Amino acid sequence: MSDKALLHMDDLQPGMRFKSAEHAIDETQIKAFATQFDPQPFHLDAEAAKTTLFGGLAASGWHTAAITMRLLVGGGLPLAGGIIGASGELSWPKPTRPGDVLQVESEVVSVTPSRSKPDRGMAVMRCETRNQKGDVLQLFTVNVVVNRKV
Amino acid sequence: MSDKALLHMDDLQPGMRFKSAEHAIDETQIKAFATQFDPQPFHLDAEAAKTTLFGGLAASGWHTAAITMRLLVGGGLPLAGGIIGASGELSWPKPTRPGDVLQVESEVVSVTPSRSKPDRGMAVMRCETRNQKGDVLQLFTVNVVVNRKV
Repeated sequence: MSDKALLHMDDLQPGMRFKSAEHAIDETQIKAFATQFDPQPFHLDAEAAKTTLFGGLAASGWHTAAITMRLLVGGGLPLAGGIIGASGELSWPKPTRPGDVLQVESEVVSVTPSRSKPDRGMAVMRCETRNQKGDVLQLFTVNVVVNRKV
Repeated sequence: MSDKALLHMDDLQPGMRFKSAEHAIDETQIKAFATQFDPQPFHLDAEAAKTTLFGGLAASGWHTAAITMRLLVGGGLPLAGGIIGASGELSWPKPTRPGDVLQVESEVVSVTPSRSKPDRGMAVMRCETRNQKGDVLQLFTVNVVVNRKV
């Protein structure tokens, strides 16, 4: 997207793609989020993390999800009426590490008008969160509410 | 669970259930999380939220997810080796509101030993986050890595 016009349901077509800004994550952010919401050794202590499945400090998957949302809301997914997810499928193929620079690329999968509510519909979006090496850290296929022009 | 013994894969049986502690959410928490990760009017401003789909201030779904994880890590899902989710299906049937008291009830759906790694397996857990009225605010069906006794 070269401009940041906000899109309504009828502007969306399957295959349309959007790219977010970037967010650099560091050890301080990882530990702060984990302390509040996911206080497990592999998210809190680089030394203790070495002997775990992660093999080193990794961000909570929910931290990756929250940063992804911040990037989408910050222009990565310019929907009129905001970004309201109802449900979705979420996976974390690789851990998010200190020093990773996250960016989200989203693609419209499908668009379906509501049968009962003429002012809205649902869109399925496939949102990939990658780091600077191109590794996919999170994949979220989400059903979002989209507004129609009235 | 009356005791807090940490469970390995071979301790888990489909149908086993676990209940977390409770977490009370308020407007201050909702706005703080939203400011950092999901700065949309319906998560930030009670007055502006009235004219949106939510009809009033609501927590970010990612905030509900993060609190759910905190409750699971804090004894709600006593797994040996910690709680490591790989993927899952997530939905938010109702908004989380200021004053809600969240609690998570989890049920083992299935348990599958790894074919290649004798020290672990996967379990499917169905985690329901409810408020004090029994409304389901979040449903997360997640594939978690579980350790085997070695």
